[in-house]
Amino acid sequence: MSIKVTFYNEYLEERDWEAAKKVYPEGQQGPIREYLAKNPDIELTVVTMEMPDCGLTDELLNNTDVLMWWGHGHHGKVPDEVSLRVKKRVLQGMGFIPLHSSHVSKPFLALMGTDGRLHWCEDQKEILWTVTPSHPIAKGIPEYIEFEDEMYGEPFGIPNPDEVIFIGWFNRGNVFRSGVTYRRGNGKIFYFQPGHNTNPVYYNPYILKIIENAIYWAKPDFKYEPRSDDFFPPDKIIKD
Amino acid sequence: MSIKVTFYNEYLEERDWEAAKKVYPEGQQGPIREYLAKNPDIELTVVTMEMPDCGLTDELLNNTDVLMWWGHGHHGKVPDEVSLRVKKRVLQGMGFIPLHSSHVSKPFLALMGTDGRLHWCEDQKEILWTVTPSHPIAKGIPEYIEFEDEMYGEPFGIPNPDEVIFIGWFNRGNVFRSGVTYRRGNGKIFYFQPGHNTNPVYYNPYILKIIENAIYWAKPDFKYEPRSDDFFPPDKIIKD
Amino acid sequence: MSIKVTFYNEYLEERDWEAAKKVYPEGQQGPIREYLAKNPDIELTVVTMEMPDCGLTDELLNNTDVLMWWGHGHHGKVPDEVSLRVKKRVLQGMGFIPLHSSHVSKPFLALMGTDGRLHWCEDQKEILWTVTPSHPIAKGIPEYIEFEDEMYGEPFGIPNPDEVIFIGWFNRGNVFRSGVTYRRGNGKIFYFQPGHNTNPVYYNPYILKIIENAIYWAKPDFKYEPRSDDFFPPDKIIKD
Amino acid sequence: MSIKVTFYNEYLEERDWEAAKKVYPEGQQGPIREYLAKNPDIELTVVTMEMPDCGLTDELLNNTDVLMWWGHGHHGKVPDEVSLRVKKRVLQGMGFIPLHSSHVSKPFLALMGTDGRLHWCEDQKEILWTVTPSHPIAKGIPEYIEFEDEMYGEPFGIPNPDEVIFIGWFNRGNVFRSGVTYRRGNGKIFYFQPGHNTNPVYYNPYILKIIENAIYWAKPDFKYEPRSDDFFPPDKIIKD
Repeated sequence: MSIKVTFYNEYLEERDWEAAKKVYPEGQQGPIREYLAKNPDIELTVVTMEMPDCGLTDELLNNTDVLMWWGHGHHGKVPDEVSLRVKKRVLQGMGFIPLHSSHVSKPFLALMGTDGRLHWCEDQKEILWTVTPSHPIAKGIPEYIEFEDEMYGEPFGIPNPDEVIFIGWFNRGNVFRSGVTYRRGNGKIFYFQPGHNTNPVYYNPYILKIIENAIYWAKPDFKYEPRSDDFFPPDKIIKD
Repeated sequence: MSIKVTFYNEYLEERDWEAAKKVYPEGQQGPIREYLAKNPDIELTVVTMEMPDCGLTDELLNNTDVLMWWGHGHHGKVPDEVSLRVKKRVLQGMGFIPLHSSHVSKPFLALMGTDGRLHWCEDQKEILWTVTPSHPIAKGIPEYIEFEDEMYGEPFGIPNPDEVIFIGWFNRGNVFRSGVTYRRGNGKIFYFQPGHNTNPVYYNPYILKIIENAIYWAKPDFKYEPRSDDFFPPDKIIKD
Repeated sequence: MSIKVTFYNEYLEERDWEAAKKVYPEGQQGPIREYLAKNPDIELTVVTMEMPDCGLTDELLNNTDVLMWWGHGHHGKVPDEVSLRVKKRVLQGMGFIPLHSSHVSKPFLALMGTDGRLHWCEDQKEILWTVTPSHPIAKGIPEYIEFEDEMYGEPFGIPNPDEVIFIGWFNRGNVFRSGVTYRRGNGKIFYFQPGHNTNPVYYNPYILKIIENAIYWAKPDFKYEPRSDDFFPPDKIIKD
Repeated sequence: MSIKVTFYNEYLEERDWEAAKKVYPEGQQGPIREYLAKNPDIELTVVTMEMPDCGLTDELLNNTDVLMWWGHGHHGKVPDEVSLRVKKRVLQGMGFIPLHSSHVSKPFLALMGTDGRLHWCEDQKEILWTVTPSHPIAKGIPEYIEFEDEMYGEPFGIPNPDEVIFIGWFNRGNVFRSGVTYRRGNGKIFYFQPGHNTNPVYYNPYILKIIENAIYWAKPDFKYEPRSDDFFPPDKIIKD
């Protein structure tokens, strides 16, 4: 099996902002690439905002099984056309894993139809609870894991999820549906909250394992060829 | 109680197309207006595509509890800004009832994140089954009702509905989730399939009753004032 | 409007256990009765385990719109027949509001099909977050409320809820889906976590308001008469 | 990979009833066994009602990844203890595939909490529509397939499914949610409507393929060990 994974990282703040640069000298793709490289099933391509079309050409997307997305302060610079291209590919069957602040990325909002609004606050201790422990995305994950991260709090402006896999607890009093799944068209989506760019969350082996699990879960279950026309001539079904 | 209902009808085909004009000489708003006028709770405003901004000004939308929508061949002419305005109002709490071919109207697609794709075919006998008979939208509706209508068939490109209220049967062999609900943000949505503009479906007392029920169901349950800021200062919750 | 509400309270521990007796000298029905008595729409009947059939006769249940349930250490003493009677009435349309430790009451488990398992621990500070703020059960409730209560923690052995209205935060690190809804048959169910019998939770005006809201939400939307037979003779639908 | 599948077939009517015997001389297990035998991943065990404990001993269930169930006129003879055993194993993680008239089998009803009520009628032409075509259970299945079967019609007394994969159309005018999924505890459930015992439905290659797909989907995603105690001592999470 070969799973073609593309990781879009905005990768602007991590170059100039000392606090982020220090944690991710090569961007978040650093530890994620290192981790996924150990898995022979996974073929990773990393693209960034500075590339033409954010690196997300039709050719690449048509060859992508699962697209991971990390963006923060520059969502508005993703061209509408690129966002639409991503959305269409998800509806065709491409898996999609928006991470952290990608809760307000263009393609995630376009697929959800909501505003992704939430409460946020500075770094706190987060305890991430596994709410659906036998789900494939939770394979090998304990009942709870702990780390420091930016607080994201309810109410969260998303549609009622198909499945809630993780709920986050923050030490100053907030809660958050931190890992949720959706099917949209033929594609599967897993939004996952952890990962502010000044926190070493993507070095945490459990977080990496969750991402790896989500890749397996989100990839198309099989090559599905949607029909080519919508008109359904009456002779297609022979009347009784 | 006063429920402010706005009915947007594209109302272009019904003026020129003989087959449609004959059935709805004043547009679909004719029978719908006549029926809803008997209900003192409901205050109906009808707007059409020819009006500036399709008649859907901020002022009107801000004074609308439930927006009904009928469009067909001219969805593309609804300005993006108007569609966005509708979407935002739904997220704020306005009810939304897209009818029939509004499954591919701009605001419905923007709220769903999917493509609304379906099979379709010429008029057939439809039997509409009540799948959730104790739901308020099904009040007073028998287990099944029959009428002639354009065929809409599965697979239907929508997110997994919160609730399926009606499923349609078509005599040449198709089925369709004809009445489905969603909550998006603070707003409630009821998509309802019947109502091609050459069929007298909106004269059918059961169809009118379903629409009336849906208005009561979709109106905001109370005046909800969303918070004004997202930053959640740590002093808001007193630590243990 | 008159809503016939029955509150079943086990009411055994509150008689002998000093810690509980002190908080609820007349049982939890004390403050709940006092609060609901102010609402002329609501007609409350209180029954307890010591009554024959736990007070839940066919006659009473057939005259109940919404049944509230509080039980703790003596779930096993509820006769199976009484539990089945409750379940059948819910499927017919009666609303059902199991409170706190009724997550493992016989009728709730029978309606859910799961084991209701959870983590628990001694009293902590709980912050209850409103996740679906425009839902009728959240009317008049702020984004979060605080009180002391026994800890109930995820993972919680329930089916994926139709709606999650509240999520609880506990100061030692746990989270819980504290207010969730289900439709089962023609009945609506709202499980609500707060309310250990040594905590004055049912004196909290917000908790009381949530219960009152839930009563309005859970009552049957209309008198629904289920069909009397299942065989569907072919002459009922005239073939095309 | 080895998937241990157990097929419980009531297998009483098929011995005495000419119409059933003719179609399934060795019971429905005949064609199902023949088909699954070609798949080296699957190890099939067939048990019947006449065996002690319906053949469903703790030992067998503890070694079963997916339990398929076919029962019809003798549901009441399944001992409550056996039904409870099945239910517990599903909550632990065993997949469960109730077929056709098993919509009112004891373990399915116990897991659903509803009454499974439906309309039914004599054999008709059924057209089964694939509503979620990229779901793994629909792999290799066309948009629709046709066969003769007993009619099962809505409204169907089940909880709102997690996913609707197939909807059936019947030529006299009924519709049915014929393939639906649920997660209950750690187990996955797929109810599948086709298969009256006087119809050769289980010889249909598409029906067999759906059953095979469902086995892969329903098997546990990994060996999940539930925690051994529920009390959550406060020292487990180190306070901030």
